[in-house]
This record gives sequence, structure tokens and C-alpha cells, in this order.
Amino acid sequence: MLRVPFGDVLETLVRALGRMGFDERRAALCARLFAETTRDGVYTHGLNRFPRFARMIRNGDIDPRGEAEPVAARGVLERWNGNRGPGNLNAWRSMERAIEIARRNGVGCVALANTTHWMRGGTYGWQAADAGAVGLCWTNTLPNLPPWGAADARLGNNPLVIAVPRPGGHVVLDMAMSQFSFGALAAYRERGEELPVAGGFDTEGRLTRDPAAIEQSGRPLPIGCWKGSGLALMLDMMAALLAGGRATHQIPADPMKEVGVSQVFVAFDPAAFGAPPDLEQLAGGIIASLDGAGTGVRYPGERVLRIRAENTALGLPVEPVLWRELSAL
Amino acid sequence: MLRVPFGDVLETLVRALGRMGFDERRAALCARLFAETTRDGVYTHGLNRFPRFARMIRNGDIDPRGEAEPVAARGVLERWNGNRGPGNLNAWRSMERAIEIARRNGVGCVALANTTHWMRGGTYGWQAADAGAVGLCWTNTLPNLPPWGAADARLGNNPLVIAVPRPGGHVVLDMAMSQFSFGALAAYRERGEELPVAGGFDTEGRLTRDPAAIEQSGRPLPIGCWKGSGLALMLDMMAALLAGGRATHQIPADPMKEVGVSQVFVAFDPAAFGAPPDLEQLAGGIIASLDGAGTGVRYPGERVLRIRAENTALGLPVEPVLWRELSAL
Repeated sequence: MLRVPFGDVLETLVRALGRMGFDERRAALCARLFAETTRDGVYTHGLNRFPRFARMIRNGDIDPRGEAEPVAARGVLERWNGNRGPGNLNAWRSMERAIEIARRNGVGCVALANTTHWMRGGTYGWQAADAGAVGLCWTNTLPNLPPWGAADARLGNNPLVIAVPRPGGHVVLDMAMSQFSFGALAAYRERGEELPVAGGFDTEGRLTRDPAAIEQSGRPLPIGCWKGSGLALMLDMMAALLAGGRATHQIPADPMKEVGVSQVFVAFDPAAFGAPPDLEQLAGGIIASLDGAGTGVRYPGERVLRIRAENTALGLPVEPVLWRELSAL
Repeated sequence: MLRVPFGDVLETLVRALGRMGFDERRAALCARLFAETTRDGVYTHGLNRFPRFARMIRNGDIDPRGEAEPVAARGVLERWNGNRGPGNLNAWRSMERAIEIARRNGVGCVALANTTHWMRGGTYGWQAADAGAVGLCWTNTLPNLPPWGAADARLGNNPLVIAVPRPGGHVVLDMAMSQFSFGALAAYRERGEELPVAGGFDTEGRLTRDPAAIEQSGRPLPIGCWKGSGLALMLDMMAALLAGGRATHQIPADPMKEVGVSQVFVAFDPAAFGAPPDLEQLAGGIIASLDGAGTGVRYPGERVLRIRAENTALGLPVEPVLWRELSAL
């Protein structure tokens, strides 16, 4: 594993994006979001994901010049069209706009249709929290999760992100509706490990902790069984409805063709009512209340800060073969 | 089991509420919400819950004359004080106000502090959907759920409700963050049944499907293990922050003293952008896409309509001993 300084990673990605037709400003932001994802330890959606992103641009599935634009507005609710542009740029713009609306109105909401994979969902939670806002956003996805009681993947795993700002470290939840992502299943399998809890069904329909058996059956488990299955359905319905965009069943099931997804971005202004509340005391008090409950308790986002510091100090961990590929793009 | 006509149940509850100090209008709504909960098959939070509600009023923990009132507003975000009034009346008023704001501004949000148990959360989802709005609401609760990795109940199970209107039957998700409620555990135990999936830990810290073992340990399982644990934390944090109210760790752990909870009600207007979308086609299309995935697939809220029709036709099922108790209140 190489350790590449953050600045060198940025430079390499910016150059690659320039060659793909990104203008300077958009290349800089897009590169930063990919690099920060790896810096924060979400390796599945950072640099590792960049080659697929580049292929989808070359294939014409993602339009490097596609920019999100407002198409309708009513009060604090806006509907935007992502024009099949880069999903991380579209999502960033949408959350930025939701925060802007919330500053004046307490709450802001942007529903985004016709966009592409937003990569790491947590990015937009950290974005909101860094701006002092409470962020809530979600996306639908291609069909990759069987509804509870069924074997065919008809639901998306529809990641949901919630962020609350806190001076001592933002609290950021970023979770898909499946117990383990396919990326996580592959990682357990490669390490030869069993899953810590049942993660899906084998081809015989039995709950299993064997990651390979779940990869083979294509039947990951929704979190909470019927509950996560229901929540995935609602998130899809709300996103398609508010954005006027596609629902999961209208999105191609091929990951290389996963375009036209729908997303919702909501921002709340914690300082809406005058003096901003003491977020350290409030969020920190809740976190502190968990102390003593047990030794394994972490708050969502806690691990990110440690990994971020480590990767910032040592450089981003990159497989040599991936680094050669990125450098040649 | 008695079968009591809906109108007779209403009359009995209205009379009891009148004796407790409710004025006529509030008694009528409060009685209706309790009766409709039983009518819809959510027996744990309907008539079965009424005696405890009455005791909390008699003890002075719930103020029958306490009414929710706005204390601060910024744009579409309002903060209300529930004044420890009846939780279902406060929640109903808050969702009503959120819908009203959404009609003019696309989105409306009421954050409610200092309220009491809202009984059946789904009530406010059906309320929003009946008004043609998309509803999203949640509450925090007393500490009743150990965070993932711990044995002590420091989190609430913080029910979350999402509703999407649809002419053919609203889609309404109403779920707590624990895999099974304590009411559900008791019901399985009384029937002598195992849980269909692991529902918590026994006193030795092993995952179990034995409902009695979980009641004994006080360790129900968060949905999706670490994921539901994180989601419960975020819901608590957002509710306390936006409402300026109590977080779970500040709420007494005794169910008879569970007062001062915080709740958030958000409404979205699907017709915000002009012509209302064809909700039957949209939500119905998503539901139809699940068909063929398997025989056990139901959408959230589907079962309610069947039970509602049955209980409306036959009368509400009430245990004779409970009916005598209600009649004497």
C-alpha cells in the first residue's frame, strides 16, 4: 500500500478530470470530494471508485458538463434537474442550496432528479454540519435489495444521511438500508472472515454470516428485516415524488448504467430562533450519556476523525496498481 | 373478546375524558384517536393504553388542559411548547400546523418540546396523507434501548413515521428503532412463540429469539444493530435540538413518568409545483414493482386497511375486563 500526500492525490485527479472535459472549478471540487472520501476512510467510495466513474464518463452515461439547475420552486422547496452530471457535484450543489434556503427560512429542501451516483453520501452530511446546519439527505439507487419476504432485488439500498454539527466533532450517520454493502461483503470474504451478524440469505433462503453465500444469492438483508425494507420503499417514494424523477424500478439494474437517480436534501438551521444553541453541550451531552453503557459504543462519525487525522499525517493509502491507473487517466 | 361498535367506544371514551377535565372538542378528538388506533389494529397503543393514560392524568403527569402553543418561528420552522398536554392532541395539532405551512411554502416543520407520549405514531402519518401531504415525523422516548455494543438502555427506541398519500391506500411506515417493541415481545411470550428473527440479547449477551429472555435482560436489538442504534441517536439529537426540548437521557426512565419528550413534524406538499402528480400511478407503480418479487411482500400500511374494514364492520375487539374498566373511568 502506497501512502500518497493529499495534495498529490488532488493534483492527479484534477488532471484526469481536466482531460475528461471538466472545467477547472468543477474539477477541483470533484477531485476534492473523491480525495476526502478516501482520506476519511470510506475507501469503497473514494479513489477506488474513480476508475468506474471515469469509464461512465467515457461511455457517455455521466455528462462531465451536466450541471444541476432549478426547474421549479415553491417557498422553501425546490426541484432541480441534475442533467446526468457528476453525482457528487450535483449533490454538493443541492445541499449548498438547501442550506442557503434554510438560513433565511429555518428549513430548506432541494429535490434533485436525473442525477448520477453521489459516491459517499456522508460527504453532504459533513458539508451541512461544516456550515453549521443540520443535514438530512437520501438517494435512491438501482434495484439491489430484495424486499423482506422476497428473493428478487426490487428495492434500492437507498442510503440515508443525517448530520448534526458539533464543535467537538460533527455527528454524521451515513447508512444504506442493507445490513452490509456489497463492498463490505467482498472485503469480509477477501479477509476470509465471517460477518459479525447475519447479513443476508444463502441460495437456500437461510440467514447466513457467510459473505460469499450472500454475494452468490444476491440477497443481502435489509436492516431490521421488514423495517429497513419498508424504510427503503418510503425513501424511494419520497425521492421520486418530490424530485419528479425516477423510482428505483425505473433505474437500470446494471451498476455501469445507474443513472437518473432521485435525491432529497434537507437542511435545518439550528440558529433559526436567535442565539445559536450550545451544540457542544447539546449533542455532546447526548453522546456523553452513552458513556458507561458499554465499552464498544461509538457515535456516528466518531471513527472518521481519527482516520482523517491519520491519513492526513501519513498520506492517503492507495494500492500501487490503482495509483498507476489514476496517474494514467 | 367483545366486539364493540366504534360509536359506542367513542362515547365511552368521551365521557371518561370529560370527567378528567377535557373540554368537549378536545375530548372528541382524543377519544377518536384512541379508538381509531384500535380500529386500525394497533392494539398496543389504542384502548389498551387508555388506562395508563388516565392514571397519568390523575397523577398530574399529563395536564388535560395543556395545549400546544407556538413559542418561536423562523420562516417555515416553528417551535412549539406542548405544555405537558395529552400527547396525541399535541402531535395532531403540530402535524396540522406543519401541513398548513407546507401548503404555502412547499415544506412545513413544527418542532414540539415538552409534550407527552403521542400514542400511535402512525396516526400523524395517516393525518398527513389524508390531507394530501407527505408526512415525516418522529419522537424521542425514555431510555429503553441499549446502544449497539452496550447493555444499558441509554437510547430511546424513537419511533419514526413516514407517509405518502395514495388514492388506493396511503403508504404509511410507523416503526420504532428496536426490532420488536416490549408490547410485541410480551405478545409472543403469551402465545408461547419464538420470535421470527433474533430480537435482542439474553442476560449472557447472546442473541436470542426467546421473547422472555429479552424482557428479562432489558436488551432489545436495535434494527440493523449499529445502524438502528445510530439512527436512534440522530433522531433524538435532531428532536431535542430543533424543539429546544429534552433528549432521551433527560427523560425519566419510568414509563409512568415519561413526560417532556421532544418531537418533529415535517410536511411536504406534493402539489407544490402546480398540477398534483398522479399519486396512484407514482406510489402505486413502485408498489406494483414489488409484485412478483415474492409472495410475502406487503407495503407499509397495507395490512391496516384490511383490519380497519374488518373492525369497522364487526366492532372493535376489546377484552371484557378492559371494557368494564373503560366504562367505569
